[in-house]
Amino acid sequence: MRALYLSDHLELRTDYPVPAPPPGESLVRVRLSGICNTDVELARGYMAFQGVIGHEFVGVVEQSDDPALVGRRVVGEINAACHRCAPCRRGDVTHCANRTVLGIVNRDGAHADYLVLPTENLHPVPDPVPDEKAVFTEPLAAACEILEQVQIHPTDRVAVIGDGKLGLLCAQVLALTGAEVHAIGRHEEKLDVLRRRGISVEAVRQGEASQKPAGWADVVVEATGNSEGFISARGLVRPRGSLVLKSTYHGTLDVNLSLLVVDEITLVGSRCGPFTPALRLLAGDVVDVTSLIQDRFSLSEADRAMARAVKPGVLKVLLEAV
Amino acid sequence: MRALYLSDHLELRTDYPVPAPPPGESLVRVRLSGICNTDVELARGYMAFQGVIGHEFVGVVEQSDDPALVGRRVVGEINAACHRCAPCRRGDVTHCANRTVLGIVNRDGAHADYLVLPTENLHPVPDPVPDEKAVFTEPLAAACEILEQVQIHPTDRVAVIGDGKLGLLCAQVLALTGAEVHAIGRHEEKLDVLRRRGISVEAVRQGEASQKPAGWADVVVEATGNSEGFISARGLVRPRGSLVLKSTYHGTLDVNLSLLVVDEITLVGSRCGPFTPALRLLAGDVVDVTSLIQDRFSLSEADRAMARAVKPGVLKVLLEAV
Repeated sequence: MRALYLSDHLELRTDYPVPAPPPGESLVRVRLSGICNTDVELARGYMAFQGVIGHEFVGVVEQSDDPALVGRRVVGEINAACHRCAPCRRGDVTHCANRTVLGIVNRDGAHADYLVLPTENLHPVPDPVPDEKAVFTEPLAAACEILEQVQIHPTDRVAVIGDGKLGLLCAQVLALTGAEVHAIGRHEEKLDVLRRRGISVEAVRQGEASQKPAGWADVVVEATGNSEGFISARGLVRPRGSLVLKSTYHGTLDVNLSLLVVDEITLVGSRCGPFTPALRLLAGDVVDVTSLIQDRFSLSEADRAMARAVKPGVLKVLLEAV
Repeated sequence: MRALYLSDHLELRTDYPVPAPPPGESLVRVRLSGICNTDVELARGYMAFQGVIGHEFVGVVEQSDDPALVGRRVVGEINAACHRCAPCRRGDVTHCANRTVLGIVNRDGAHADYLVLPTENLHPVPDPVPDEKAVFTEPLAAACEILEQVQIHPTDRVAVIGDGKLGLLCAQVLALTGAEVHAIGRHEEKLDVLRRRGISVEAVRQGEASQKPAGWADVVVEATGNSEGFISARGLVRPRGSLVLKSTYHGTLDVNLSLLVVDEITLVGSRCGPFTPALRLLAGDVVDVTSLIQDRFSLSEADRAMARAVKPGVLKVLLEAV
């Protein structure tokens, strides 16, 4: 089968073996996969991953220990848990100490003709949700994770910093609470996705601050994918407010922790989220994901697709396994 | 009157004018005040404060617009709020944008014969609570603040790092929840205060790690007063756990924010707390504060008292305004 394989370099293999699902896992024929910034980071050496990359997908189950799933169109949670370690026993399966992660940690991923995942990770996609929407389930779930962690009140002011794919999804999901969401980014054309949905937006240049006054927001979401975002986010959050961190990137940042104490700020690290609510939002058609699609390539053109996805300012690039 | 006055240096003045309470404020004759690490930091230039230092006290009301308070023994909340700014209108009066803070920001403090505070800040001390316990109300309230911010379950594992005054109070307050509290410090004799109350303790040398495994704690409280504490605290908190920051100190720290995202850690800055619950705990005699008293001096010997308080390993030094 075809598979976008990462070793010391990234290459599209055409003779990669179709995986055989072990007990408890299912074989999924991929129909569409999405290129995430994490894929780009992996190709740059993040996590030292070797294998097939890709973790956003929609596909059809071809083999499964659950006969009801065979032939069903599915999306899949990316963390495969052991169910024996302390985090698993607490119910924190996405933090399983022994987890493999689709296309990220010790498990071949989704930029391929086939993948395997634990059957329990698969979620059938409601019929009215087309593939090009369903493929956004994973990042949309990551946006929903914020609401699992932080209570957003309809009367809150929420700033979302970063107009990449995740920032645009976070802003839309948070706006559904009725809160006053203000999205800050660098690109007018990306922010237009939010503007069209009635969300307040502001384009700022690199190094430029938001026009909102310091401490404007009850909650700030930092989704820029780089360390500069934290500084802006810190300036916008009010005393006793929450700052949600969504960015992962290389390196560390010099932080004045004493100021977090004086202002009693809560910093919340936020990663993978729940698929079922994300599918409900897609089925309800209350989040615009298709405007985030920048380009589509055949899986056979995966090299070209990756080259396109790494370009600054490019939103979602999809791979069609046709 | 006598007053421990900070300008470019710290000196005990004996001819400082007795303050006159403006409308809404009361005049309190100080009986006992406690030297806090913040006093030491202020003397080193933190906050660039000029005035009478000291913010932990118990005293007797001599003049007040509330006649019922005159002659009453009181403690007092240290943040004087404007009640007009946005934080005040939210109810976050300890974060008032225009606040003065007793002995810390634009308001003369408690290491003196007299002080003034807004009448609303004063809390009568229950009769059974002697002065030498009541003087701990302010730091005990800061320990209670943790429970205002973070839900501690009786089945939780809680690590408290730092065996200074605040660390010892935090460990005791958190142990009252029934949670498994493990206190980590540098000094066997300080940790003994906790050991005597059945709290698990561990003395580690500088640069040495706790013997608890990584990720042992659901909640970690960092109360070391220095930047090293954060590293230890980070190592002990489990994925999706909370790390409460109690330390304020000069300077910044290099933090890997991406790891907070991956492990979905919540960092909670925590400062001043509620006085009423602290007074209830003192009245109930469920926290050992008197073992924290290292030494007592007359206010007239304030210089000697400060010299004693700055010595590493020294717990609470009290000043008697007699």
